[in-house]
Amino acid sequence: MDKLSVTVGPVTRDLPTIQAGKAERVPLVEFIGDSEFTNAAAQEMLALIPEGTDILLTVVTNALPLTHELSDRSGIPYVCARKKRRTYMQSPLIQDVPSMTLGVHETLWLDGPHAERLSGKKVAIVQDVVASGGTARALTRFVERMGGSVSGYMAAFRRGEPDLELRYLQDLPKLAEG
Amino acid sequence: MDKLSVTVGPVTRDLPTIQAGKAERVPLVEFIGDSEFTNAAAQEMLALIPEGTDILLTVVTNALPLTHELSDRSGIPYVCARKKRRTYMQSPLIQDVPSMTLGVHETLWLDGPHAERLSGKKVAIVQDVVASGGTARALTRFVERMGGSVSGYMAAFRRGEPDLELRYLQDLPKLAEG
Repeated sequence: MDKLSVTVGPVTRDLPTIQAGKAERVPLVEFIGDSEFTNAAAQEMLALIPEGTDILLTVVTNALPLTHELSDRSGIPYVCARKKRRTYMQSPLIQDVPSMTLGVHETLWLDGPHAERLSGKKVAIVQDVVASGGTARALTRFVERMGGSVSGYMAAFRRGEPDLELRYLQDLPKLAEG
Repeated sequence: MDKLSVTVGPVTRDLPTIQAGKAERVPLVEFIGDSEFTNAAAQEMLALIPEGTDILLTVVTNALPLTHELSDRSGIPYVCARKKRRTYMQSPLIQDVPSMTLGVHETLWLDGPHAERLSGKKVAIVQDVVASGGTARALTRFVERMGGSVSGYMAAFRRGEPDLELRYLQDLPKLAEG
C-alpha cells in the first residue's frame, strides 16, 4: 500500500492511503490511538485559533482527542456534536450534512444542554480533515441556530479545495489510483 | 432533574441523571466537551495503571478523550476500538458485547493494524464507566485473540457490581426513579 509521509511539529507519520470512491486514494489521518501525533497537531493549531473565539465546536470521532487537546492547551472550552442520537439527549438540534466526501449521507446531533453553550457565542469550527466542507456547513448551522457566529474554520489538514475560508496546517494530496 | 455532585481531584461537576431502563435513573458522566474534568480523571487514574502495562485499550466515544489524556500523561500508547465498521478498516476483529446496561446489542470493531499493536502485549482495559462489565469482556476477547494478556481493568467510575477486578476512582450511585 502507498504511504504518505507527513510531519507536524516534531512528529512524522507514514499515513496509509485508502480508496475513496472509484478514482482516487486519500491518506488516512488517524488521531485516535496516537496521542503524540494528536498533541503535535493541537500545538500547531493554537496559532490558528481566531481572535475573540469564545468556544470551539467539533464533531466525533477522529477530531475529538484533537479538540480536547486544543481546548486544554488554549483554555477555550469546546462542544462536540455526535453522529447519532443518544438516548439521553434532551431537545437535541439535528442537522443534515449537505454533502459527504464518500457519498454517505450523515446527520449530526447536538444535545440541547451543549447547544445552549453556543448561545450568542463566537465559535471556531475545528476539524481533523476538511474536504468538501459539508460537515463544516452543518456545524455552522448549529451555531447560527443558537444565535452565535462563526469566528473561523480550522483543520489540521485540507484535502482538495473546500469553499471555505479555512485555517489549516497542511494540504493532503489526492492520489490517483494506480 | 436530579443532579449528582461528583468531585475528581480539583474538579467538581453536577452530573445530570438520566433514565436507564424503567426502574432507575443513573448519573450521566460526560468527558466529551469537558477537558478540565477529563484531565482531572486522567491524572487520578495514573495511579491505577497496573505495573508492567505495555498498552491501553479503550472503546469510543466518551472514554476516548480520557484515554488520550491518560496515554499522554503516562507515556503508554493506546488503541481504541470502534462501535461500527469504518470503510477503511483492513481485516478488522469483530466482537459482540455480551450484555449491555441499557439492553442494546452492540458490536465492537478493531481495525487490523491497531489489533496488531496488541499482539503479545500486556494490555490495560480503560473505560469511563463500568456497569455490567460486558464491554470490558468484549475488549478482553480482542486482547486474547491477539495473544496478549490483560494487565488489569480501569475505569473512572463504577456503577453497580460488575464481576471484574476493577480499579476505579469512585462509585456512582444507582438512583431509584422518583
